[in-house]
Amino acid sequence: MEWKVNREADKPLYQQIFEFIEEKIAYGEFPPGSLLPSERKLAEQLNVNRMTIVHVYDELQASGLVQRKKGSGTQVSTHKWGVLPKGVTNWRKYVEGGSFLPTYPLIRHIREAAKRMENGFDLASGELSADLFPTRILQSSFTKALFPDDLGYEHPQGHLPFRETVAAYMKSYHHIDTTSSSVLITSGAQQALYLLTQCLLSPGDAIAFEAPSYCYSLPLFQSTGLRIFGLQVDAHGINPDDIVSLHRKHQIRMVFLNPTYQNPTGTVLTDKRRKKVLEISTELGIPIVEDDPFSLLSFEDKSHSPIKSFDESGNVLYIGSLSKVVASSLRIGWLIGPQSVINRLADARQQMDFGLSIFPQLIANQFIQSTEFPKHLKILRQELLDRRNEMISALQEILDEKVDFTVPNGGLHIWCKINQNVDDQQLVEEGIKNNILFMPGSVYGFPNGYARFTYARLKRESINEAISRFADALSRI
Amino acid sequence: MEWKVNREADKPLYQQIFEFIEEKIAYGEFPPGSLLPSERKLAEQLNVNRMTIVHVYDELQASGLVQRKKGSGTQVSTHKWGVLPKGVTNWRKYVEGGSFLPTYPLIRHIREAAKRMENGFDLASGELSADLFPTRILQSSFTKALFPDDLGYEHPQGHLPFRETVAAYMKSYHHIDTTSSSVLITSGAQQALYLLTQCLLSPGDAIAFEAPSYCYSLPLFQSTGLRIFGLQVDAHGINPDDIVSLHRKHQIRMVFLNPTYQNPTGTVLTDKRRKKVLEISTELGIPIVEDDPFSLLSFEDKSHSPIKSFDESGNVLYIGSLSKVVASSLRIGWLIGPQSVINRLADARQQMDFGLSIFPQLIANQFIQSTEFPKHLKILRQELLDRRNEMISALQEILDEKVDFTVPNGGLHIWCKINQNVDDQQLVEEGIKNNILFMPGSVYGFPNGYARFTYARLKRESINEAISRFADALSRI
Repeated sequence: MEWKVNREADKPLYQQIFEFIEEKIAYGEFPPGSLLPSERKLAEQLNVNRMTIVHVYDELQASGLVQRKKGSGTQVSTHKWGVLPKGVTNWRKYVEGGSFLPTYPLIRHIREAAKRMENGFDLASGELSADLFPTRILQSSFTKALFPDDLGYEHPQGHLPFRETVAAYMKSYHHIDTTSSSVLITSGAQQALYLLTQCLLSPGDAIAFEAPSYCYSLPLFQSTGLRIFGLQVDAHGINPDDIVSLHRKHQIRMVFLNPTYQNPTGTVLTDKRRKKVLEISTELGIPIVEDDPFSLLSFEDKSHSPIKSFDESGNVLYIGSLSKVVASSLRIGWLIGPQSVINRLADARQQMDFGLSIFPQLIANQFIQSTEFPKHLKILRQELLDRRNEMISALQEILDEKVDFTVPNGGLHIWCKINQNVDDQQLVEEGIKNNILFMPGSVYGFPNGYARFTYARLKRESINEAISRFADALSRI
Repeated sequence: MEWKVNREADKPLYQQIFEFIEEKIAYGEFPPGSLLPSERKLAEQLNVNRMTIVHVYDELQASGLVQRKKGSGTQVSTHKWGVLPKGVTNWRKYVEGGSFLPTYPLIRHIREAAKRMENGFDLASGELSADLFPTRILQSSFTKALFPDDLGYEHPQGHLPFRETVAAYMKSYHHIDTTSSSVLITSGAQQALYLLTQCLLSPGDAIAFEAPSYCYSLPLFQSTGLRIFGLQVDAHGINPDDIVSLHRKHQIRMVFLNPTYQNPTGTVLTDKRRKKVLEISTELGIPIVEDDPFSLLSFEDKSHSPIKSFDESGNVLYIGSLSKVVASSLRIGWLIGPQSVINRLADARQQMDFGLSIFPQLIANQFIQSTEFPKHLKILRQELLDRRNEMISALQEILDEKVDFTVPNGGLHIWCKINQNVDDQQLVEEGIKNNILFMPGSVYGFPNGYARFTYARLKRESINEAISRFADALSRI
């Protein structure tokens, strides 16, 4: 609920809230028969005293707008002023059907807390902080960007000049040879993953990804009815031989890997293992989906070549993204693979949304070709390195032996093992009370007692305080 | 295939094509085991003589890059230079699985022809012509647009200031009362329809829409496994009582209507019928999905109030779009409905693409609030009216009694009955030969012998010639 009470208005709070709900009912946004939030919950959402809400609900009942029943809450009247004494759509029945599972409740809870907190410490959101986005440069990119002659429907794979730029970018930054017709521009990596699971896999198919993995936090894999098997990660990523044994047991149909600065562990799959993974994939005829959002965010002198750069047989589907290196709300990613696959996915994407808006494509096209882009990357890497170092110091000083972690050489996150028995849910709640958000390990398919801390979303000067608050929360359970 | 031969280069055509295919094979874009297009088809796509392709394929075979088998075509060698004597992914097996049906072959065929034709007459693409998009104004909108402080992930329902603008726009243009929290910004109307079918309906559910309807041309309804029933359209839209009888027989779960300047017939559902539809919907508890992309493109003095504007019980889900009034590649639409529904769909959309890019939202937000927007609408309406009149004259003069049609009072299309026996597929082919594209009635779930002509995508001076070419094609079958 975005609406807020206006504490400076002359109108009493209870009356503001009454009118707000009355309006929602009149507009059909709270339809007849729907349930209003409980008094306690609404009071919390609007940050008012619970008695204020009790007063509002009493008034709503008195005016016949709602009905209150013991044990079943406050319901919008189905006899709205006697005007509509008929049945209405039972929306609940519709909302609970369909083929999407709702987002993991713990993640929803953390995201909602992030929205509510005004001066919280957010180590949970896996993205850059506002000051790291190249906002001014993007704005000026756009004025320079050449507008196409025709703003009609675009090519199903995306704007051709931008796909050509992406092909050149893949060559110069990642040593991958490709051409525009094998590139599908997507709404971030998320849409690429969605298309792959929807179009190339069927319910019941077995797939594998790293354990732990951010993939466990995406309900889309479960929504599609896939059977998921984990590949344990050690200090150098997964063990390729595990793919062979999993395949023998479960007939794995696809392997999803995030080989460089893996989310959440930060590990890098060694070159030797990358080549071995490719060999096994080719041998068994199992495609590899390589998700590569972080590799430009490296603190090392050397860069890691994607598995795709070794791939001569078209077995690797490569996913790139500008969300972590430019801006998450730009929503630009891409998928590179064999043409038959790209054509199929582009056709399905037309059915979903009729393709991506041309505007973020024009902006990205201008920016990643400009001399501003390498400058931006350099500043970004340095700032992330400073924040990582700050977090490492804070973890060592404040939490010391209470946690174990490996120092990541790139990316946005530090993965910590907590050296005491904790219940993830409880620790999250204690954190929220203490204005500190983090992602618990259970979200990534791991047992309780791990945490992912993102050092990219907080300014350096706040990191020490954030870790202190986490330590506080931890000490209280 | 976007690649084209360069007829001005010194390099012979066959060698250009050879190198192009060799590159694709080397990059894994044509993976080992995949089929190349037939000689005939590739020759057509590249607009070269078939013997050139025969020559290329002979060379490819001689170098061991492809294998040719009688009856099964030309296949990329699985033994690429003997380097990879192993199995590779059988992409065909993957591409034919999944939960999306491919787009209707006839529509694909027409779209591909549209891309190929350089000086064709396009009465098929249901969108504005390049000169009608307010390109320069959009470009300057963006420089004025206020950038948000944080380019991090946006609210799942879309950028809040833009949702507030949409709520105000719904009030001023469509007499609909709503608030930002009941608005979900989507990638055009297409994504709204996709979300509704995926999240609120299940395979086997019965739904109804107009017959004929553009909905028949969208494979997403079939992909979801829905049972589809038609509501016949007369001069004043559907007959509301048909919903009751369909419901009795098939337990209809949702009704999709395009009440104003319906696509393809151009009819307007009368106010009396709108109210009756709403009454029946409320009585039976069946939600109405009201798709309203054309109502601002009116040639009448009066405007038609959407069904949603009479809806007090939240039974109508309203879909708006800027694709037909601003630009199709902007990809901005929205859905308005009860909050529980909007929340559910916003959550599902996060799983699909993590939300819409902020940039088209900033542009649309600036533009539809500006004084430029009503000016643009006025010019657009006048120009569309002129084109409609031009087409009416051409139909009367050139085709005369060979077709019947009703004059539409708004929108982009004229729907014609052809007064002779025709095979749609054959007429489309004759049209393509004659450089004229149109949409045959069978695409909209109707029998052979109807055509939808879009007068918006062609400049006025080309319309007469387009209808002549259609008449030519018709006379040849």
